[in-house]
Amino acid sequence: MSELVRLNANENMLGPSPLAVAAMQKATLEANLYPTDQDQLLIERLIARIDPHLTADNFVLGHGSGDVLRAIAQTYILPGTEAIVPIPTFAAYKRLTLLHRGQLVPVPLKAYQVDLTAVLAAITPNTALIFICNPNNPTGQIITHEAMAAFLSQVPERVVVVVDEAYLDFVDDPAFPRMTEFIAAGYNLIVARTFSKVYGLASLRLGYGFGSMGAITPVQNGRNKFEIGRIAYAGASAALNDEEHVVNTIEMVQAGREYFYEELSKLGLSYLPSQGIFLIIKDLPMPAPQLVEAVLAKGVIIRHMDIFDMPGYIRISIGRPEDNAKAIKALAQVLQEM
Amino acid sequence: MSELVRLNANENMLGPSPLAVAAMQKATLEANLYPTDQDQLLIERLIARIDPHLTADNFVLGHGSGDVLRAIAQTYILPGTEAIVPIPTFAAYKRLTLLHRGQLVPVPLKAYQVDLTAVLAAITPNTALIFICNPNNPTGQIITHEAMAAFLSQVPERVVVVVDEAYLDFVDDPAFPRMTEFIAAGYNLIVARTFSKVYGLASLRLGYGFGSMGAITPVQNGRNKFEIGRIAYAGASAALNDEEHVVNTIEMVQAGREYFYEELSKLGLSYLPSQGIFLIIKDLPMPAPQLVEAVLAKGVIIRHMDIFDMPGYIRISIGRPEDNAKAIKALAQVLQEM
Repeated sequence: MSELVRLNANENMLGPSPLAVAAMQKATLEANLYPTDQDQLLIERLIARIDPHLTADNFVLGHGSGDVLRAIAQTYILPGTEAIVPIPTFAAYKRLTLLHRGQLVPVPLKAYQVDLTAVLAAITPNTALIFICNPNNPTGQIITHEAMAAFLSQVPERVVVVVDEAYLDFVDDPAFPRMTEFIAAGYNLIVARTFSKVYGLASLRLGYGFGSMGAITPVQNGRNKFEIGRIAYAGASAALNDEEHVVNTIEMVQAGREYFYEELSKLGLSYLPSQGIFLIIKDLPMPAPQLVEAVLAKGVIIRHMDIFDMPGYIRISIGRPEDNAKAIKALAQVLQEM
Repeated sequence: MSELVRLNANENMLGPSPLAVAAMQKATLEANLYPTDQDQLLIERLIARIDPHLTADNFVLGHGSGDVLRAIAQTYILPGTEAIVPIPTFAAYKRLTLLHRGQLVPVPLKAYQVDLTAVLAAITPNTALIFICNPNNPTGQIITHEAMAAFLSQVPERVVVVVDEAYLDFVDDPAFPRMTEFIAAGYNLIVARTFSKVYGLASLRLGYGFGSMGAITPVQNGRNKFEIGRIAYAGASAALNDEEHVVNTIEMVQAGREYFYEELSKLGLSYLPSQGIFLIIKDLPMPAPQLVEAVLAKGVIIRHMDIFDMPGYIRISIGRPEDNAKAIKALAQVLQEM
């Protein structure tokens, strides 16, 4: 592994759950055997954690939430249909829409937040999907429960709303939506989640979606059985039970955000307070790609947001205290050398 | 793990490659990191093994060859198109065709072999795909290089031929096709392979396809990047290098087939000589599901072929000598108790 500090990919720098590592190592011994009911067992564990009122029929598993999103796009985006995508946001929604020959309907953020009024105004008879990332990557802002409720009540029934909650575990704002309530209320809705972030299992490529039957059933129909192998299942189910690792990760991220707020202010850099495992820095003193390059030369990988249609911004993932300190030190040096 | 002898799923009962196990166990420690270039690295290793004339553009990776087949079906089977499927064969081709609302054109085997003349005769202007499993699961028969050459030369250029070679490593017939020659010759062709069989990595869910650019490029376009995680990559690349495990597995299977031939004959059971990690038994003295049930009661799991549209047959996977002996013993007891 490289000595570079990786703060570019929103990974969990605390590492995988040690319980997950032990379970996966054990499971490698039976790697020769096909999975049998691991898909089902994982869904049962997810139901127990998320909401016992959900059933297996509400779920779909995938190889990362990116694969779940792909399956959703494949199901709903037919040529000629439209997908509404608030921008800037995670690049996959745009890519998947265009891949399936849908019409991309971009709706600019307003003050770095998803503009739900504008999203509603963008709905047409051809709208198939609305993608929402909450908290939004890379801006780190959330839509509140109240705002989500008002929004969903105005979306036509035939439109499927996809809410990507990859970063929900890092939110400390109590106003964050409880999406299961909206599923129970019957909205045409799919929530996408991942094992890549708080559980530290990005390399397993394991994610899931859950939603109302009407929305999820057509997505399930396109899936193979036995998607989830024994090693992935072992890791995921051990990680779900490793409360300590989850708590430590969340504390690391939330404390890391505060650390960055303070240190960036000292450096005179403007940032956006974030509910994610990342934050963006704005009003840069040099072009973003150049700043990223200069910081990389100091041994820290961060990202400019050009691919997110957000030129002039950089995004830093929140790591361990030592990672964060190295990032701040690298930024300070680059500023000094200007 | 169950004490039952699993001879129902064509798994490698020798286990995963020990080198693969060690590599995967190490890789679990960095499960928190997204894969970076693992897809590309794996393809490079495959090229080195299969044919250095191939390039990365000839390849597509998937979560098991089933996922590769799914991606192929998704790409080529549009409503109204037809897929030709020799039957009986592996059930996925039929399922995927119907899933994508294609028209299934079944072509019965002739003397347990794919009837290539009948397949050619079944081609219409609507034919999109032809699925061929070689050696065929569950009959274990092969199409020879010569027969494949004659066949491919008569398939219209616009039709994509998919050859599933999940079991090629177990073939000892030197007449088996060298598919890379047909790819080099420019046929509109995709070969699907898997890490689930000879490499003993069924639980990684890792397979791949390679073919002519024209056939494979549209399939690649539908894939996400970073499909292959670090653990899967570590296991697969170590297994590719574990020559000893591959040789031991092939010897186990080929010797196991001979053992079954001999012992089944002694029991008065008719079997089909096979080039796979399985063989089928015919002319059963009782209904196949009943025989499977009776053998299960003796602790050995085998399969009846009803799901393969082959009622009246059972399929036994070839295991370790002790597994095979238990299967023969169970069959003998069941016959005795009739």
